[in-house]
Amino acid sequence: MLSDIEIARAATMKPIGAVAERLGIPGDALVPYGKHIAKIDHAFIRSVQDRPRGKLVLVTAITPTPAGEGKTTTTVGLGDALNRIGRKAAICLREPSLGPCFGVKGGAAGGGYSQVVPMEEINLHFTGDFHAITSAHNLLSAMIDNHVYWGNEPKIDGRRLTWRRVLDMNDRMLRNQLNGLGGTTNGFPKEDGFDITVASEVMAVFCLSKDLKDLEARLSRMVIGETDKKEFLTAAAVGAPGAMAVLLKDALQPNLVQTLEGNPAFVHGGPFANIAHGCNSVIATETALRLADVVVTEAGFGADLGAEKFMDIKCRMTGLAPDAAVIVATIRALKMHGGVAKEDLSKENTAALEVGFANLARHIENVAKFGVEAVVGINRFASDTDAEVSTLLALCERAGAKAVMCTHFAEGGKGAEALAHEVAAILDAPRRAQFRTLYPDEMPLLDKVATIAREIYRAAGVEADPKVKAKVKQFEAAGYGRLPVCVAKTQSSFSADPAAKNAPTGHVLPIREIRLSAGAEFVVAICGDIMTMPGLPKVPAAVNIRLDSDGRIVGLS
Amino acid sequence: MLSDIEIARAATMKPIGAVAERLGIPGDALVPYGKHIAKIDHAFIRSVQDRPRGKLVLVTAITPTPAGEGKTTTTVGLGDALNRIGRKAAICLREPSLGPCFGVKGGAAGGGYSQVVPMEEINLHFTGDFHAITSAHNLLSAMIDNHVYWGNEPKIDGRRLTWRRVLDMNDRMLRNQLNGLGGTTNGFPKEDGFDITVASEVMAVFCLSKDLKDLEARLSRMVIGETDKKEFLTAAAVGAPGAMAVLLKDALQPNLVQTLEGNPAFVHGGPFANIAHGCNSVIATETALRLADVVVTEAGFGADLGAEKFMDIKCRMTGLAPDAAVIVATIRALKMHGGVAKEDLSKENTAALEVGFANLARHIENVAKFGVEAVVGINRFASDTDAEVSTLLALCERAGAKAVMCTHFAEGGKGAEALAHEVAAILDAPRRAQFRTLYPDEMPLLDKVATIAREIYRAAGVEADPKVKAKVKQFEAAGYGRLPVCVAKTQSSFSADPAAKNAPTGHVLPIREIRLSAGAEFVVAICGDIMTMPGLPKVPAAVNIRLDSDGRIVGLS
Repeated sequence: MLSDIEIARAATMKPIGAVAERLGIPGDALVPYGKHIAKIDHAFIRSVQDRPRGKLVLVTAITPTPAGEGKTTTTVGLGDALNRIGRKAAICLREPSLGPCFGVKGGAAGGGYSQVVPMEEINLHFTGDFHAITSAHNLLSAMIDNHVYWGNEPKIDGRRLTWRRVLDMNDRMLRNQLNGLGGTTNGFPKEDGFDITVASEVMAVFCLSKDLKDLEARLSRMVIGETDKKEFLTAAAVGAPGAMAVLLKDALQPNLVQTLEGNPAFVHGGPFANIAHGCNSVIATETALRLADVVVTEAGFGADLGAEKFMDIKCRMTGLAPDAAVIVATIRALKMHGGVAKEDLSKENTAALEVGFANLARHIENVAKFGVEAVVGINRFASDTDAEVSTLLALCERAGAKAVMCTHFAEGGKGAEALAHEVAAILDAPRRAQFRTLYPDEMPLLDKVATIAREIYRAAGVEADPKVKAKVKQFEAAGYGRLPVCVAKTQSSFSADPAAKNAPTGHVLPIREIRLSAGAEFVVAICGDIMTMPGLPKVPAAVNIRLDSDGRIVGLS
Repeated sequence: MLSDIEIARAATMKPIGAVAERLGIPGDALVPYGKHIAKIDHAFIRSVQDRPRGKLVLVTAITPTPAGEGKTTTTVGLGDALNRIGRKAAICLREPSLGPCFGVKGGAAGGGYSQVVPMEEINLHFTGDFHAITSAHNLLSAMIDNHVYWGNEPKIDGRRLTWRRVLDMNDRMLRNQLNGLGGTTNGFPKEDGFDITVASEVMAVFCLSKDLKDLEARLSRMVIGETDKKEFLTAAAVGAPGAMAVLLKDALQPNLVQTLEGNPAFVHGGPFANIAHGCNSVIATETALRLADVVVTEAGFGADLGAEKFMDIKCRMTGLAPDAAVIVATIRALKMHGGVAKEDLSKENTAALEVGFANLARHIENVAKFGVEAVVGINRFASDTDAEVSTLLALCERAGAKAVMCTHFAEGGKGAEALAHEVAAILDAPRRAQFRTLYPDEMPLLDKVATIAREIYRAAGVEADPKVKAKVKQFEAAGYGRLPVCVAKTQSSFSADPAAKNAPTGHVLPIREIRLSAGAEFVVAICGDIMTMPGLPKVPAAVNIRLDSDGRIVGLS
């Protein structure tokens, strides 16, 4: 089979105007970035906001393993398949981050015959949204330290600042640094550091904002540090939010591209799925829902992190509610959860599959707790044996879940038609359950974490040392107690221990640190080591990325 | 009079396709970024490269003062005026840097009725070129330190690295920093720092590259540090140039916009004019010359820095040669050179004007040394008295220079028609002198600096301590002796002392440090304090930049 970039390059793309037309977006509402990418302008978005919403389908997954699950691929394949069976469907994805493309990860625009294109542009600078977010974030950083430097009012103590800087680059050297060296004209010595841009609160704010006004208001509320009286300082104190909104104005317009089959895809925003909520922008989802009959979207990592945050953060804030969910699994990944080593995955092992099914079963139960009906979409690999396939289908049936084999990676939308029919059946049937979030706004913050830990992670309890508890008290006293909680923990386990595969029980969730994202409007509970600035591997992917003699990109995957 | 942003916003812009048509650029050669900005694609640029070049006009200026000269404004006004008198003219400008827009400086797209538009986009993210340069630069930074971190071959000693990082932001805190703190998983402690993106060697390389191949070759040759045997390490050693070229591929396509009068303007690249050569990209200039009969371009700072580098670096490397030059001056600035304080500039003072004329006279003589005929373009201010105007015109005549009063700031191209006629007369006349650079390639490096100091700065000599001389020897031994020299000194004086206004003599040029830009292909002689990362003022311009209730940008100037 061809590589992703070869498949993507061989595709004949429609002019982006033709893709937009399918959704009824007129040409003058498009801001073109070349022939195959456009932003949809703010005026048009405002003009459709009172239309009724289409149906929303959330694609989520089992607990990720190195074997790969194919969540983005399934989102793309399902979107194409829904179009093939006669639905006017659009998809909504996160934008890939540029930095990780040069490390281990490669691109993030789907794979095989279920990709969004133009793949190279989407994976690299795209329409510059992340660059705009980097600029806005770092303008605030510079203005904060400049405020301290000049001794402006209100007086700010440089040691009580928590706002860092960001770059869209995997650069471990910038994690912990001492800035402002070199004497009085060069600032003041300050312990500092950079995160990757997707970890910026500006990214989370960007993705949760309804419009430009909401964006600026949220930026104004972001907490940058504290006074010596433990009062929170916000970005507004240094006069930055106006200029930040100016830098983000064009970026906030959602990007429209197409799938390999020429169907509309909104690719906009991309916050981390640990310290942030991990879904594409609210503006993209809301706009797509006004233009399409069905919108398929995804949430980061497995359902314990991604789907939970989608429901409890994004849906809670916006009034969105998924009409159906797809839980993506692979036989290989479930065998890994069942104890098989990566190198043995190609050998048939129905016993391990039965053991590892416990992971999928728990995610199925969890999604049902939100009142959302789910279908299991199984990405079929060539190494899956017929015995394994029938074992898994039988296990799903016994668990009361619909499950469908999918081959969209190799076949495009055609390979996800069976899944599309199942999803469509849910969308067309009278709704059997009412969507609900997991906890009410008024629940105390630590109880919210405990609820997620109990209901979703199946933990025996949570623990937090007195420092964390004191911080929670401080947040609640300042009026932030009603915010939802965003748990940052490993994506590789239901627990906080990445080595605990499958469906661990009896574990205790340790809350190591608690942070306030007052602009994004959630409280982050950090449970375990969360890396907010990746490093490069010994041989970075970048070493093999270059232009060929015709000026075409090779080595980007 | 309206503000720049008000004038720019009130303009009715042509679709960018219509602007391109005037230069014979077909629609399918354009990569649109919205309706009023486009990049011109690599294939079209290759297709016109064998056409004969049009005429090239360089706009330069007297030694800058806080009174302002209006070099960009004159470039725009002259371009419009040449079109008005029937020439097919295009202009070539540098792209503004985003960071300084939020500090003191404001935008850099001309002013009054001589601007390039859309002003807001050009001053902010534009087509993302500087973001691409920032990414490419910092990818190399991350790959270098990652190479050291993993102990890859060839072994590199982290203490012998000279390559820093960049951001397009005024942020003094990042000038000097200690990175890689926090233990073994977080890198290794390293003295480090950030420059502003326009100071990146990647920017200089970008602006001097003929095409993508040349770009990658130059990136490969950039020196990043030394071995313990004092051999130079290049970017190629860590395998970065291919991926850097990938990041810069689209950015290298020149940007086409328009003047307020709808004439074509190439705005592309923008290196510093002190530690780099300070002109827009070679690709933009070369492309414009193939498409227009006359191309008007500018060089940074006064003629001592900007014009000298334009001739000795850009023209030397490319075979370009200006067919005429314009030296921009104002009566107010010459009065400042003559000793008048800024607050007294509105009072008539012909005596001070006569004294300060020495600055202009010297620049006139200097430009003639390159074999280029020049016209003096005087930007008229409302406060200039008739007596001052006739004094200056008489002084110019006595010095053998043509001088023309210009009012394009207030009147657009009409106000520069007289200047356009003088320039056209030079272009149409048989060439009286042969273009020449100031020194031959084979002259030793320190002699090159001494030649510039003697011929252009009128210094009594140069001085360099043994450390600098040893470095020069090392460069020459490694084969870099044939490179031209890029002097980095204050733009406010012919000397290295910013307080020495007008036409100082007897000064000695102190070479404090010498650096190699092996990819850009020049050696930088640093003479005085050169700031490569600006800071923000006590009240940054950003504080007043915001969106109004209609979502329009206010406060950007």
